[in-house]
Amino acid sequence: MTDIVDWIAVDWGTSNLRAWGLAPDGTVALERSSAKGMGKLTREEFPGALTELLDGVASSRGGPLDVLICGMAGARQGWLEAPYLEAPTDLRGLLDGAVHPQMPDRHIAPAILPGVCQKAGADNVMRGEETQLLGYAALNPGYTGVVCMPGTHSKWAQLSGTRIEHFSTAMTGEMFEILRTHSVLRHSLTGDLDGPGRAEGFAAGAVAGLEHPEQLLGTLFQVRAGSLLSGRQPDWCAGYLSGLLIGTEIGSNRHLIGDQAVPLIGSPALCALYAQVLGMIGAAGAPQDATQIVLAGLKAARSFAA
Amino acid sequence: MTDIVDWIAVDWGTSNLRAWGLAPDGTVALERSSAKGMGKLTREEFPGALTELLDGVASSRGGPLDVLICGMAGARQGWLEAPYLEAPTDLRGLLDGAVHPQMPDRHIAPAILPGVCQKAGADNVMRGEETQLLGYAALNPGYTGVVCMPGTHSKWAQLSGTRIEHFSTAMTGEMFEILRTHSVLRHSLTGDLDGPGRAEGFAAGAVAGLEHPEQLLGTLFQVRAGSLLSGRQPDWCAGYLSGLLIGTEIGSNRHLIGDQAVPLIGSPALCALYAQVLGMIGAAGAPQDATQIVLAGLKAARSFAA
Repeated sequence: MTDIVDWIAVDWGTSNLRAWGLAPDGTVALERSSAKGMGKLTREEFPGALTELLDGVASSRGGPLDVLICGMAGARQGWLEAPYLEAPTDLRGLLDGAVHPQMPDRHIAPAILPGVCQKAGADNVMRGEETQLLGYAALNPGYTGVVCMPGTHSKWAQLSGTRIEHFSTAMTGEMFEILRTHSVLRHSLTGDLDGPGRAEGFAAGAVAGLEHPEQLLGTLFQVRAGSLLSGRQPDWCAGYLSGLLIGTEIGSNRHLIGDQAVPLIGSPALCALYAQVLGMIGAAGAPQDATQIVLAGLKAARSFAA
Repeated sequence: MTDIVDWIAVDWGTSNLRAWGLAPDGTVALERSSAKGMGKLTREEFPGALTELLDGVASSRGGPLDVLICGMAGARQGWLEAPYLEAPTDLRGLLDGAVHPQMPDRHIAPAILPGVCQKAGADNVMRGEETQLLGYAALNPGYTGVVCMPGTHSKWAQLSGTRIEHFSTAMTGEMFEILRTHSVLRHSLTGDLDGPGRAEGFAAGAVAGLEHPEQLLGTLFQVRAGSLLSGRQPDWCAGYLSGLLIGTEIGSNRHLIGDQAVPLIGSPALCALYAQVLGMIGAAGAPQDATQIVLAGLKAARSFAA
């Protein structure tokens, strides 16, 4: 059986690969995913992974099947390096910056969207988030303000419609993982990390991070001292560490947060924690459906070809 | 041949074990060291390591040989857990808090000094540094002010003579190691880290850390972005990371730094870097001879028995 679609939208991240087949009327006609993220593939394995994922799919337009890809497939260590647009920039220009990797199978015509970089003393890069930002802008025309994208490397981007004005990256999620796994804090973080003490620890850590983001190198050690001195259990410590890091991230970005709710694009569980911490400083977070956002971004990118 | 001494001073850290034999007049009659630090020993191996180190040493006073130990040998995962004195406290009380582990060899009489803790919402612990602080106080009678002890877990302690009023711990050295080894920054930190670009990177990182200690989670990522976008080499990146972390530590402790030079107790290379960064904010650092300091501390602790 062959699925007939107009084109394919692909989000190719570090861990996963997701594809949507779009019908000519813009609806999702098929959805596929695999665990063949960029981080698990050598350069030579990308064409095969895509061919495998799109097995039995053909173009409704007769010619090759257009596949529009965003994310880490375009990284230097990915399939084919896509350039960066330099912020500030209008994200409607994403498709013009795409690169076109060769496929052995001529029936598939992939294009990888560029990332966005920032220079001039504020070096920064994103890959994948730019497409989500364009998707948010497309779904919320005229939005001007900050967008927060929690994750391994959280992004805070200032949008004006489809323009990205400035952005920063906080290594919050990765810091949690390496501290939990490799630092002296790991001695306080073994056992059941999801017990009933986690919520209380999270709230305490968030307060510490919000109040003193400049003290992170010091407050981190209090996780260890708290378990040695005050009998803090692993669940409380894990919550404290998580809250401290998220509180520090939000505390250091306080100047970007205005009266309107901060759109949050990320996993639902993480977005809920960010919304909680935003609430602690009298702000609000507005969690988004990340899948809808990235799909909207790929559609918008395709619609804005020069 | 047997060495005859009055007593033995021992600094038993995580990585190393050092011992000095003191003559009755207080001079150092012998000096020994081994790589049998606390981190390499099981609980049962401590007596043997000490016996081996003190082979052929006997007491000039006829009875058992007094051995006064500071450091991680008194940790929970060490030889025998020594309690903590709770700050604020007078460090002349260290010997009164010592514990006395059993030795198979009755000719050796060890005592392990306590650490110092802090509670009441500012949980913190130190082991070993308290003895160095007492040593600094003994060599500099009446000193009142902050003492900085750079290292894996840097300590900042406020001394009033022999009293420790308050202290904090910054995970600066450990953060450098785990970021270098386990984070995404490792991709920017492979190759020659000690090349000529290191000094320039260090200065740039220190400025960033001093000016915005609250932005650490964000500026860390600029190490990676700088190598992707600006061709920063591994030596520059390593310098930037080191400078950023030390700058952040010093920037977050600025309120403790007054007009007098900050005593620095640690490795000479690290103390020189801290002194450089202190100089960048118009302050001064005064590197100390850490070996003389710990020896003075063990002597002072022994002299202040109740």
